[in-house]
Amino acid sequence: MTYCLGIVNSAGLVFGADSRTNAGVDYISTYHKLFDFTLPGERAIVLCTSGNLSVTQAVMHQVRRDLKQPEDENLYTLPSLYDTARYIGKKIRTIQEIDRPWFERDRIDFQCNFLVGGQIRGEEPKLFLVYPQGNCIQATPETPFLQIGETKYGKPILDRLLQYDTPLEIAVKSAVLSIDSTMKSNISVGPPINVIMYQRDTFEIRHRLRLRLGSPYLAKIRQYWEDAVLKTFEAMPDIEWQDDVGVDRREVLID
Amino acid sequence: MTYCLGIVNSAGLVFGADSRTNAGVDYISTYHKLFDFTLPGERAIVLCTSGNLSVTQAVMHQVRRDLKQPEDENLYTLPSLYDTARYIGKKIRTIQEIDRPWFERDRIDFQCNFLVGGQIRGEEPKLFLVYPQGNCIQATPETPFLQIGETKYGKPILDRLLQYDTPLEIAVKSAVLSIDSTMKSNISVGPPINVIMYQRDTFEIRHRLRLRLGSPYLAKIRQYWEDAVLKTFEAMPDIEWQDDVGVDRREVLID
Repeated sequence: MTYCLGIVNSAGLVFGADSRTNAGVDYISTYHKLFDFTLPGERAIVLCTSGNLSVTQAVMHQVRRDLKQPEDENLYTLPSLYDTARYIGKKIRTIQEIDRPWFERDRIDFQCNFLVGGQIRGEEPKLFLVYPQGNCIQATPETPFLQIGETKYGKPILDRLLQYDTPLEIAVKSAVLSIDSTMKSNISVGPPINVIMYQRDTFEIRHRLRLRLGSPYLAKIRQYWEDAVLKTFEAMPDIEWQDDVGVDRREVLID
Repeated sequence: MTYCLGIVNSAGLVFGADSRTNAGVDYISTYHKLFDFTLPGERAIVLCTSGNLSVTQAVMHQVRRDLKQPEDENLYTLPSLYDTARYIGKKIRTIQEIDRPWFERDRIDFQCNFLVGGQIRGEEPKLFLVYPQGNCIQATPETPFLQIGETKYGKPILDRLLQYDTPLEIAVKSAVLSIDSTMKSNISVGPPINVIMYQRDTFEIRHRLRLRLGSPYLAKIRQYWEDAVLKTFEAMPDIEWQDDVGVDRREVLID
């Protein structure tokens, strides 16, 4: 399993990804799922991957090969980030076109998702999620984050916290905590955690972080968070118990 | 969808449940999923339900009918909570035996899960999860909570906080927050929230809570929690950025 997330806001972008891949619980490996294709000064482009590893690796292979063919459309020449997301979608479709019958025959899950984010000179920072079918959606100020892979455990903390104007460093911390919560609840998501912070209009990645298993910073913020959660609960307003609710009374109310 | 959870610890038990049921997004209703069958002074028994509503209602119907037949085994006569969980499992099997072919023909999901918890005089407080197949597992000091339905969004807060010796009032607050987080992230889980707190060796339910949509207490603790989360992130140790990680380098390390 995998968990990756992207956040876009007025100040820039944040990307985070775990590194665990498993084919059953008895075959667990570490693979990168966060890829930086920045062309400094010109465009910052970051990809995150989830799903069938052979498909995502095949897409990445094609993407890298295109970079060596300047006459083809590629990550350095595409005119907009929307076109970049559609380009990744096309690569997914190409691979699926080839491999799909073989996967289907053995009922192998060949789905994959990509996050495509960054900024191309002349545009705002943008973030897209590309679906296994090659179509895509874009993050907006109302919903400034997108997730792929094992998304549920890490979503509440983002739902509680993230606004379009959340400072970038706070967004990074929420991303780390979101991944850490997912790792704690689902053993198939695991370290190292890779994080990138991109500040708008810089057109280069200046902030990178890799948190390995046992990383002192990861241990520190996990402890800090757990202490804070406990203290918050201890200080939370007392439950106002009610005497008049018969909880076994069946209700047929439309909410 | 549904979200119910049970917590067992050295001081007693906590149960929480939402009340939303949906058959598609265009048919949303409110049904009780938390049922109190306590026989004061003798046994406290609480059931929570998730899954196919026709199956869980049929099980509840059978359970109530058995209570009127004193010669049959029923919730008031079963000798232990383990037997009670197995009894619920038997009821699930009986209903499935009857309805299964009809469900399967139209590919209708007929799965359901029950939480069965409480205390029978002579025993410790206990908590079981009964599976759709009628088998069951028991919560233990190492894993003092069990969830059914839409379990993922609400799990991290419990994983962070709950220990076997967590005070019961703190456990209640974590249960309310766990349900609230799930409601916020998944619209198919919704109010009213019903909560029961059972103190060991009392053999009656003295603490009940129903939080309706717009309940002042629910609004208060949600606001309190969101403020606390933001403050916690603001005060969190700064990210220690690294200059030496090339995040697009592929790693093939076994973790």
